Amino acid sequence: MKRIGVMTSGGDAPGMNAAVRAVVRRGESLGVEVYAITNGYKGLVEGEIHRLTSNDVGGILNRGGTMLFSARYPEFKEKEGQLKGVEQLKKHGIEGVVVIGGDGSFRGAQSLSNHGFPTIGVPGTIDNDIAGTDYTLGFDTTVNTVVEALDRVRDTAGSHGRVLVVEVMGRDAGDIAIWSGLSSGAEAIVIPEKPFDINQIIKDLKDGFAEGKNQGLIVLAEGVMPAAELVRQIQEVDHTFNIREVVLGHIQRGGQPTARDRVLGSSFGARAVELLTEGKTGLCVEVVDEEIVTNKFDDIFNNLKHEPKLHLHELNKFLI
Amino acid sequence: MKRIGVMTSGGDAPGMNAAVRAVVRRGESLGVEVYAITNGYKGLVEGEIHRLTSNDVGGILNRGGTMLFSARYPEFKEKEGQLKGVEQLKKHGIEGVVVIGGDGSFRGAQSLSNHGFPTIGVPGTIDNDIAGTDYTLGFDTTVNTVVEALDRVRDTAGSHGRVLVVEVMGRDAGDIAIWSGLSSGAEAIVIPEKPFDINQIIKDLKDGFAEGKNQGLIVLAEGVMPAAELVRQIQEVDHTFNIREVVLGHIQRGGQPTARDRVLGSSFGARAVELLTEGKTGLCVEVVDEEIVTNKFDDIFNNLKHEPKLHLHELNKFLI
Amino acid sequence: MKRIGVMTSGGDAPGMNAAVRAVVRRGESLGVEVYAITNGYKGLVEGEIHRLTSNDVGGILNRGGTMLFSARYPEFKEKEGQLKGVEQLKKHGIEGVVVIGGDGSFRGAQSLSNHGFPTIGVPGTIDNDIAGTDYTLGFDTTVNTVVEALDRVRDTAGSHGRVLVVEVMGRDAGDIAIWSGLSSGAEAIVIPEKPFDINQIIKDLKDGFAEGKNQGLIVLAEGVMPAAELVRQIQEVDHTFNIREVVLGHIQRGGQPTARDRVLGSSFGARAVELLTEGKTGLCVEVVDEEIVTNKFDDIFNNLKHEPKLHLHELNKFLI
Amino acid sequence: MKRIGVMTSGGDAPGMNAAVRAVVRRGESLGVEVYAITNGYKGLVEGEIHRLTSNDVGGILNRGGTMLFSARYPEFKEKEGQLKGVEQLKKHGIEGVVVIGGDGSFRGAQSLSNHGFPTIGVPGTIDNDIAGTDYTLGFDTTVNTVVEALDRVRDTAGSHGRVLVVEVMGRDAGDIAIWSGLSSGAEAIVIPEKPFDINQIIKDLKDGFAEGKNQGLIVLAEGVMPAAELVRQIQEVDHTFNIREVVLGHIQRGGQPTARDRVLGSSFGARAVELLTEGKTGLCVEVVDEEIVTNKFDDIFNNLKHEPKLHLHELNKFLI
Repeated sequence: MKRIGVMTSGGDAPGMNAAVRAVVRRGESLGVEVYAITNGYKGLVEGEIHRLTSNDVGGILNRGGTMLFSARYPEFKEKEGQLKGVEQLKKHGIEGVVVIGGDGSFRGAQSLSNHGFPTIGVPGTIDNDIAGTDYTLGFDTTVNTVVEALDRVRDTAGSHGRVLVVEVMGRDAGDIAIWSGLSSGAEAIVIPEKPFDINQIIKDLKDGFAEGKNQGLIVLAEGVMPAAELVRQIQEVDHTFNIREVVLGHIQRGGQPTARDRVLGSSFGARAVELLTEGKTGLCVEVVDEEIVTNKFDDIFNNLKHEPKLHLHELNKFLI
Repeated sequence: MKRIGVMTSGGDAPGMNAAVRAVVRRGESLGVEVYAITNGYKGLVEGEIHRLTSNDVGGILNRGGTMLFSARYPEFKEKEGQLKGVEQLKKHGIEGVVVIGGDGSFRGAQSLSNHGFPTIGVPGTIDNDIAGTDYTLGFDTTVNTVVEALDRVRDTAGSHGRVLVVEVMGRDAGDIAIWSGLSSGAEAIVIPEKPFDINQIIKDLKDGFAEGKNQGLIVLAEGVMPAAELVRQIQEVDHTFNIREVVLGHIQRGGQPTARDRVLGSSFGARAVELLTEGKTGLCVEVVDEEIVTNKFDDIFNNLKHEPKLHLHELNKFLI
Repeated sequence: MKRIGVMTSGGDAPGMNAAVRAVVRRGESLGVEVYAITNGYKGLVEGEIHRLTSNDVGGILNRGGTMLFSARYPEFKEKEGQLKGVEQLKKHGIEGVVVIGGDGSFRGAQSLSNHGFPTIGVPGTIDNDIAGTDYTLGFDTTVNTVVEALDRVRDTAGSHGRVLVVEVMGRDAGDIAIWSGLSSGAEAIVIPEKPFDINQIIKDLKDGFAEGKNQGLIVLAEGVMPAAELVRQIQEVDHTFNIREVVLGHIQRGGQPTARDRVLGSSFGARAVELLTEGKTGLCVEVVDEEIVTNKFDDIFNNLKHEPKLHLHELNKFLI
Repeated sequence: MKRIGVMTSGGDAPGMNAAVRAVVRRGESLGVEVYAITNGYKGLVEGEIHRLTSNDVGGILNRGGTMLFSARYPEFKEKEGQLKGVEQLKKHGIEGVVVIGGDGSFRGAQSLSNHGFPTIGVPGTIDNDIAGTDYTLGFDTTVNTVVEALDRVRDTAGSHGRVLVVEVMGRDAGDIAIWSGLSSGAEAIVIPEKPFDINQIIKDLKDGFAEGKNQGLIVLAEGVMPAAELVRQIQEVDHTFNIREVVLGHIQRGGQPTARDRVLGSSFGARAVELLTEGKTGLCVEVVDEEIVTNKFDDIFNNLKHEPKLHLHELNKFLI
């Protein structure tokens, strides 16, 4: 394999640039030329492809976002788009491709592989919602960004004897909520993976105030319901709280990657190139028990399950 | 004067704790005992008053929020509440009080002074909307918090070729928007003090994309309209943008104070005590041209005007 | 078990407060009273022991340092000191103790256990140099602090075409250097666990400048030699570099813990109490493959080995 | 004036990139082409000159260091070097130049102006040691960086009952020490502009410990003496402290600029270009009482004096 491509797709995640850098530099050390495919599958189909050298990826290790850009492109679900993509790759002499992104991106990657084009995936999404891997690239950074934001809003909540319901990202996964809630001493963490008892939450908040706490914090995963709705449900049962919702929004997605995401991105990117040069395809690099492993796209979609760390959710209960 | 009180009122602001610490320690150095009045005017009326020593304010210099808590208490607009407040102060042997807060808090402070009770104000609010002072306590920290958040959302916007409309705090003042917008290279800054031209904004965004920018940023002061409304207005004129609103919300208010707010809070707090011991009342400490000055509450309400730095708003136009 | 003690010993590490909080709150949920032993073994021997309630540990989760203080006390190596310690514990009705600290602290803990006093250890040290555990409490925070500092010094190095030799902590372990070096794109990472080739380093630096890099970064673990010495050795071979040493020093040790260290500290602390209530002693809680496990002090001292992630050190070579 | 140059010289300072960006963009809005002169006076003499467009300065507003690089070049003190510089400028059709840097850089700028070449200076240095201006570009960022580091080391000092002597930058000026010391609640701030009394410092430290403080912090300006020397002097008088020196070093210089430095850099850069187009030379833009003003290089060197805010130094005394 003499020439490969690399692209990012779906929502951007901190650490994606670290992975791109690793693809380029590990590639060069293996004698492989690397080409950037910009703007995801849209750029692939439209031929937005250009050479990336070691120099081009200098200084990007600590940057948030993705230097390769990303875009939505539902058309890639159709065979026509996929074949156009393969054609573009061949036109540029590219023999394999690394796709960095989430679940949706991997569907596209699998289709390329099914069309006989060697493809390796790298799980890059802040949501930590990909089957088979303990962590996705960007998750650690996002958790720390959220925790910093929660530290900030607690200052304010504590100054006003207030209860805050903070909605955090995660799509259908509660991982961001669990980790950031436990890290922030939240009185309740509400996630999609576990039913919650609104009366218990209200009781815990009241107990907290009774014991002298000057504020209450509920961390709510977006996959359950909007923050305003949970506030409404709480107020329906109990009107006495000085309660507000906070939606953290886009700030969760950006920012300089943590050390862990830089290391994970570098490891993922390097391994992905190695796999291509070893003739592999249809695989995703993942991390399990601190080891870089591989899983088939097929297994990720059909046989493996993402398991959030529910014992941490449980642990939080004892610490409020 | 042998015994004074200190309280925070209204929205909390980073640097309030620095001011409280300075009141206590400068007080002690002048032989004055300091008492905390917690939860603002509500606590005052209800007698939430206790001694504060030098030790009690150790380690609070770098904390956000206010260790004295704050609360809304519209009842203090009535004479009855005010007289109850004076009574509580006298009961504790307190001869003067420092009130740290915003415009509404100063109304209460003025009424205390009008009832013959020595009162000095300290302008503590993130909004920078108090007449007579160049800066309020908390403003510098909030601007830096907003800028950091804008740096983060730009990562994401740039990865997706997106336009973001970010709504920032400031009540009726555009100061936070002007400073954070200029600091973040915003394509447009929309503030209450200046009419805006939606066609110009759209043109600037388009010019930016045409020149190769991969994103657009509009910083919107909350005093103009909600972010969703500005998005709607833009889309009414032009549907082609990939545009989203972001409401920064409560994270703007908390966080560790910047060096400037720690220094300003320390200067304000120390000067406030000195003024009380000099027999002054009905005044607010403020900062003009880097000097700590005093203005009468009367002038702040009736004769002085807050002037945002419109030349910075103007400057931004040349730099996008 | 109705009453236990908790102490921190040795160098402080971010996350220690999270562990103390978890000991107290998990303890309370199990019906166990918790007592603080302040200033480490010195405080133990001198009877610095007081009750800690759930309220006392409110708001400490995000604080650096240790609220229980720490102190050096070599006298605890002697049997006399140890017996005095046990006596103090019994005098206060304490039936078990959690010791949070590093290798030296565990020697003391083991001696308590050997005297028949139930003792559980929690590995709290920034150096990541304890056998049997993948990570120690504080390591993740320190790595991120170092990476942030390296991002900063790179700004400056790049502005001057300079080579920087940055000495980081870690005692005899290279872990901090490996993680922070890989995260910062260091041209070389010099650690105690691997011999280094000064000519190779010089060649890599020269190659970097030849390829257009505007700076060079060498991350040096303190366990190898002082930064000034490595600068001297490089200059002995090649005088052409604009080279400087930077010793990061104490800033590496403090700061608010990362999410990961807050979660790890909470998990460690909670598990340590549970072990005491289960009648265990002479054990340390550790983390292996993302699971909280236990190892005997004996094994930690004699049979287990700390293994830094040398594959990351290797990986860095391909990415410079 | 149709074509101007911009360069940075001397030590880099956060905000320099904001100033460069403003020179380019304000220049373009005035119909002036801007050229980068890289590596300071060395690059000038050697003809390292290339066109800078609006696009080239996109995304640099929030970067530390200087994208134009900097270098020492004592040879520029000689007339020969200066004339070579003028020649290079003329060769590229450049009619005026903006020099961003400190005192030494302004000497070079003045010599260019004396040779009849229009030159405007921008005070960019972290040390705040330039006559005539209240603040230099980079000072606010550095103070905040130092304060953050002091917050961190205090965590550790407090955990060990330790006194820390922290040496901060500032060359012959005490400004960084005064601002960061007051912001950090330092027990003593030692600066070149004021004699200090070692017995008073020791007394204050002892009083602090006696009143229950668990640590002591001395902030020392590098212009007075090295930290190790002050530690030695203290220990000569009193051996009882657990005392250590910390030299903050290079981390003070880098990092993303604060909002204030981004605004100041933008204002300075824009005004500098305007002055050139107005036919001015031999001037430096400065900030006095929040207004951008100009002073002649001559006055900066000979008639104006830099005044650190000694009242803040005084204020700190009352707050420890």
